[in-house]
Amino acid sequence: MDNNQNYQSLTRTFTRLSRFQHLSAIAGWDMFAMMPPGGSTARGEALAELGVLQHQILTDKKVGEWLQNALSEDLNDVEQTNLREMTRQYQQAALLPESLVEAKALAGSKCEHAWRTQRPANDWTGFSANLKEVVKLSREEAKIRARAKGCSPYDALLDIFEPDMTSARLDMLFADLKSWLPDLLQRVVDKQSRETLIAPVGPFPVATQRELGLEAMTLLGFDFNAGRLDVSAHPFCGGVPEDVRITTRYDENELLSALFGVVHETGHARYEQNLPRQWLGQPVALARSTAIHESQSLFFEMQLGRSEAFLKRLLPAIIQRFGAQPAFEDDNFIAWNQRVKPGFIRVDADEVSYPAHVILRYEIERALINGEIEVDDIPGLWNEKMQAWLGLSTEGNYRNGCMQDIHWTDGGFGYFPSYTLGAMYAAQLFQAARTALPELDGAIAQGDFSALFDWLRQNIWQHGSRFSTSQLIEQATGEALNSRYFREHLTTRYL
Amino acid sequence: MDNNQNYQSLTRTFTRLSRFQHLSAIAGWDMFAMMPPGGSTARGEALAELGVLQHQILTDKKVGEWLQNALSEDLNDVEQTNLREMTRQYQQAALLPESLVEAKALAGSKCEHAWRTQRPANDWTGFSANLKEVVKLSREEAKIRARAKGCSPYDALLDIFEPDMTSARLDMLFADLKSWLPDLLQRVVDKQSRETLIAPVGPFPVATQRELGLEAMTLLGFDFNAGRLDVSAHPFCGGVPEDVRITTRYDENELLSALFGVVHETGHARYEQNLPRQWLGQPVALARSTAIHESQSLFFEMQLGRSEAFLKRLLPAIIQRFGAQPAFEDDNFIAWNQRVKPGFIRVDADEVSYPAHVILRYEIERALINGEIEVDDIPGLWNEKMQAWLGLSTEGNYRNGCMQDIHWTDGGFGYFPSYTLGAMYAAQLFQAARTALPELDGAIAQGDFSALFDWLRQNIWQHGSRFSTSQLIEQATGEALNSRYFREHLTTRYL
Repeated sequence: MDNNQNYQSLTRTFTRLSRFQHLSAIAGWDMFAMMPPGGSTARGEALAELGVLQHQILTDKKVGEWLQNALSEDLNDVEQTNLREMTRQYQQAALLPESLVEAKALAGSKCEHAWRTQRPANDWTGFSANLKEVVKLSREEAKIRARAKGCSPYDALLDIFEPDMTSARLDMLFADLKSWLPDLLQRVVDKQSRETLIAPVGPFPVATQRELGLEAMTLLGFDFNAGRLDVSAHPFCGGVPEDVRITTRYDENELLSALFGVVHETGHARYEQNLPRQWLGQPVALARSTAIHESQSLFFEMQLGRSEAFLKRLLPAIIQRFGAQPAFEDDNFIAWNQRVKPGFIRVDADEVSYPAHVILRYEIERALINGEIEVDDIPGLWNEKMQAWLGLSTEGNYRNGCMQDIHWTDGGFGYFPSYTLGAMYAAQLFQAARTALPELDGAIAQGDFSALFDWLRQNIWQHGSRFSTSQLIEQATGEALNSRYFREHLTTRYL
Repeated sequence: MDNNQNYQSLTRTFTRLSRFQHLSAIAGWDMFAMMPPGGSTARGEALAELGVLQHQILTDKKVGEWLQNALSEDLNDVEQTNLREMTRQYQQAALLPESLVEAKALAGSKCEHAWRTQRPANDWTGFSANLKEVVKLSREEAKIRARAKGCSPYDALLDIFEPDMTSARLDMLFADLKSWLPDLLQRVVDKQSRETLIAPVGPFPVATQRELGLEAMTLLGFDFNAGRLDVSAHPFCGGVPEDVRITTRYDENELLSALFGVVHETGHARYEQNLPRQWLGQPVALARSTAIHESQSLFFEMQLGRSEAFLKRLLPAIIQRFGAQPAFEDDNFIAWNQRVKPGFIRVDADEVSYPAHVILRYEIERALINGEIEVDDIPGLWNEKMQAWLGLSTEGNYRNGCMQDIHWTDGGFGYFPSYTLGAMYAAQLFQAARTALPELDGAIAQGDFSALFDWLRQNIWQHGSRFSTSQLIEQATGEALNSRYFREHLTTRYL
């Protein structure tokens, strides 16, 4: 008899769960990239049925017993880490009563569905009625999780996306950003206001944009044997590590938004495609956290993608496809892709003003979940913070203010900080790679990214969830998360 | 307390099963239409895991008890029929020991996978070794089913695809065909050998062919709110009734093969899209049988699609897209689409020589499953029968002989008769529609198919599995299946 039979039972169960997750991921991708509208109800029901099954399998009493018994079994390092991640998944799922899971899913789905029409209609009254229900249930969830973890309600939600992170630590990190970013932003805007740039002139046919995107993906090492590029209204990276599905959206009049969307999602995709093959199907092989995931997409899009060297490398491919034009002169093209322009919409924001959007949301959602403010307080706070950060008023403009994001509609409180944590991780990682690879800038200019990607593979991708976020970053960069690198990056690029 | 609680438990279970079937169908479609090669192993494992789950749910002891108890519950007509179809599914699944199901799946998957390279290599020795294992297991399955049903082993497999049908009845139907079809085929070939036809000259760009296919689908009433057209190596109709996925394949030098493939699959698709909405998810709402399904695709492709009226209706759309050329003159175009030319390959066969391909396979697979011949006898019999039917030798040509089809590789014995039954049903149904709709030919010439499709909806589509195949055909046409209509159709069109 094996001396780790409880652990073996667990790996079989988690392999089974990952197979169901495979079907869920592909059907989910299909829903956004392929499915005709008439399939919506049946697809929703099918995915919900599978979700219930997955929850039942994961929270089965036997799983709890195996987890307990496996603690005293003879496991090697990776197995112990896998057990830790299994336990984390089990506890997160088993904590909540099934009635709350179901009520939250229903309220979230209702709020999200209505939001799709309420947002364009600027209908805050209608939206806030649904959102109140979502917030009520998310607070219940947060309270239950907080009691088990011994932390604040918001920290308990944060932990789902970003294990290791607390709002105390976030407050310190963001306080630091707040101390220098507004000033830096102002100086960049002033500087750029003195430059005159030429905008690219379309139309840029969709089929040609797609070819360009595919070429960029190839250049960035995307494995087409294990993934695809398609179209969806909201770009995302989905699928499974063996078959990663990224999407973008095209606008005939706008060349760069689809292209950099593809570069961004390719960063997510390469992380997924290079997770540890020998552990696929087990929790230890999953991507570490949402912030580390965002760090990879921002590494590709911002650190690498909008660097001078990479932009120069892209230009010939663009000119070959769309012909030469004044906007495609080296200097203009680089400056155009490094424009900084504070605006209302987070997903359209440049990397200098992006943190303002995130910190604003973080402060509001934390206060909301901890019960310090109510849903009705959101528009006023939003307006106040947008004025303070970016000098923009959102009074009465809910559509481009507090109704612009999908995250809160289904209760995804705790996700937003990942974006700015990701940006900071990305800057720190890029600097570490540059230190480790003295030839890096020259290689990038020649379109040779192999050393850079090998570095990412060795330091991030191949580890999956083996280490905590802090361990991962310390091993890769020699120190804990430090916003200094993000500041240096912005200063160097923009001032 | 409800007085039909056993039945209610059953409908909940079958709704659940249909939701899992939804995910299986979409992931299956994706596998052939979208998935990159690297996703293959993980997808196979995910689908197998779901298959095991579905089998476990369906054959749960409780389901057997509910089925038994529901017999004495107070059920209306449709509910009784649903119960009959549930029982049929349960018995078919529960009969087989799980070890046999698994062994058959493994042997079939191995044989099918190897066949993909063995066929182009003409490697009968390699293929037959795998096929012997598949035949051995299919015989075991057939014996178990035959014992339970009290019929011959082959009839027991036939029943899976075509409930109601026996080989005794097939023998009579096919004996009738054999009495007149070879002579008719010879006369058509002689007649056509005196005509000179002009072939369409390509290239026909794929994107334009796709547009033409979409226009044909629109003309034929395909509901794009509930389905899609994509590309796969082997065209098929998949998905679920709320979201039907059909595929075709394009060849730049060949205009009509993709187009009529689309017309064929649209026939399957409209059947699926028009199954009874109020019963979707229950067995009574499923398509009646494979032969009735083929009757709908052949109704669209052969009865309607290759009729003079429909071909004339198509021509302007073709000329508009590809320009005029001599091959697109009315008479030439019609004759070109009604060419009869005996050949080696079933899927490329015209409707006059097609039955020869089917009867040949039927006779061989029946003898094989009933233990009258062995795998090693197949090539000789194939050659003998091809010589007798079509005057073609397949000696040593396994690739275009007995290795051309995928059906046997994973044990799909009993399916082939459906194609010719479908052709006969289609002819009989079209004649009945013509009798019921005196204005039909004029309407078709004007591109107005609404009365025809209403007739199909009322007589076939909306009934799902409510009636037996025989009842369905008798209600729709006033008599049992009669090959006379197929003969009349061929004689009228080709002589």
